[in-house]
Amino acid sequence: MESVETDPVKTDAATAGRVICVGLGPGAPDLMSVRADRLVRGARHVAYFSKAGRRGHARTIVAGLLPGDAREYPMEYPVTTELPAGSAAYNRLLSTFYEGWSERIAAIARSEEIVVLCEGDPFFYGSFMHLHSRLQGRAEIEIVPGITGMSGCWTSTGQPITWGDDVLTVAMATLPEDELTRRVSDTDALVVMKIGRNLPKLKRALAAAGKLDRAWLIERGTMPGQKVSRLAEAEDVPYFSIAVIHGQGRRP
Amino acid sequence: MESVETDPVKTDAATAGRVICVGLGPGAPDLMSVRADRLVRGARHVAYFSKAGRRGHARTIVAGLLPGDAREYPMEYPVTTELPAGSAAYNRLLSTFYEGWSERIAAIARSEEIVVLCEGDPFFYGSFMHLHSRLQGRAEIEIVPGITGMSGCWTSTGQPITWGDDVLTVAMATLPEDELTRRVSDTDALVVMKIGRNLPKLKRALAAAGKLDRAWLIERGTMPGQKVSRLAEAEDVPYFSIAVIHGQGRRP
Repeated sequence: MESVETDPVKTDAATAGRVICVGLGPGAPDLMSVRADRLVRGARHVAYFSKAGRRGHARTIVAGLLPGDAREYPMEYPVTTELPAGSAAYNRLLSTFYEGWSERIAAIARSEEIVVLCEGDPFFYGSFMHLHSRLQGRAEIEIVPGITGMSGCWTSTGQPITWGDDVLTVAMATLPEDELTRRVSDTDALVVMKIGRNLPKLKRALAAAGKLDRAWLIERGTMPGQKVSRLAEAEDVPYFSIAVIHGQGRRP
Repeated sequence: MESVETDPVKTDAATAGRVICVGLGPGAPDLMSVRADRLVRGARHVAYFSKAGRRGHARTIVAGLLPGDAREYPMEYPVTTELPAGSAAYNRLLSTFYEGWSERIAAIARSEEIVVLCEGDPFFYGSFMHLHSRLQGRAEIEIVPGITGMSGCWTSTGQPITWGDDVLTVAMATLPEDELTRRVSDTDALVVMKIGRNLPKLKRALAAAGKLDRAWLIERGTMPGQKVSRLAEAEDVPYFSIAVIHGQGRRP
């Protein structure tokens, strides 16, 4: 990547094929960007990640928008939580999976446009990045940013997440407990993602940092059935729930 | 705030008056959400912050969308950089300013809907929060989240900001130099906002952390004239430019 001035407004340019990864936002279909909405409604080829045998959240968000004759490519993960993340077997399976789909998508993009659906914002802890790195030099790629899941969740709490000079830390609950505790302690505002089975560990980390009573847990942020609760009282939460602690910075 | 299940899909509900703060996203008008786009196009009263005598960035983003007969309320800051942020005189001026506008907006919202425009995402370092806290109990308020400026900027770099279990720190360049250096050192991925006149300090902090060569500076992210450059080479940058360092986490 070199220093360049670029023209970001190129969505309407006539090109042969390309890959467009579209950020779908936090879940409510009308929180998708106008650009994303237009691309989804006009899609002829559409790929999305899902758990084997499930429709997948991204596909669900666009249910009312996707043209009936669009060709769909569900990219079913070969493994999710059956193997430890980062183990050799896990990495081998996922690497083969990403490489296979990169090849298929690049082949389509040689002559046509293919839209890859991505929950939230594609470059923020998204799965698309594993295709993105493998598609370099093999296809023209465009990324459409989206509203992050965390923005949807802190909006759902009805309180600003950061004020003035607050420091915001975004950490995954998958971190080792001592590291998680350190991160939770040393920040003004906090977002924790990838909670699920790590909830007990996260509770201990928050308690050790003296912040458990300030933590909120948001499930299905911006979607029907949205739930905002005190994290201390939560017991069984989905992997995609998000925890927040609001900053307390300068407010004239 | 208590634990509640709420229905976030209430935008179309018929109500008397209310205040709707609409996140406009990073700058490109079609990166506004579908919901924001609809609200702006239907606005009868619209308020927005601006520097005295200037149109303001938020108003510029909606230039092609706002109905010609919408009543406009430019909220001109009484002070921006003339006084030190946080000084008693600064706080007094701003507090009076926010209180005055809260009163005017609440008066309109008693019978009609008023849209307040907000760049980026309203609850993420936005100015609206200073009205939001003062409007509590005086008006019904709804917040529409937006794509943050930082999402727009890291998308412009063409590289993912975070991978796997990366920790992301968002810090303001207005922090004291030693604190800024500590924050820059102790993270995987980094976003720094409010740069402007703090650029020399930020460069020193990045150099002290051994990360200056990994830092990118984005100006006008997602907008015409967008510029992505190595931060080390930047010399004179606008306040609203954003610096990023990409995380290097797990990638199968």
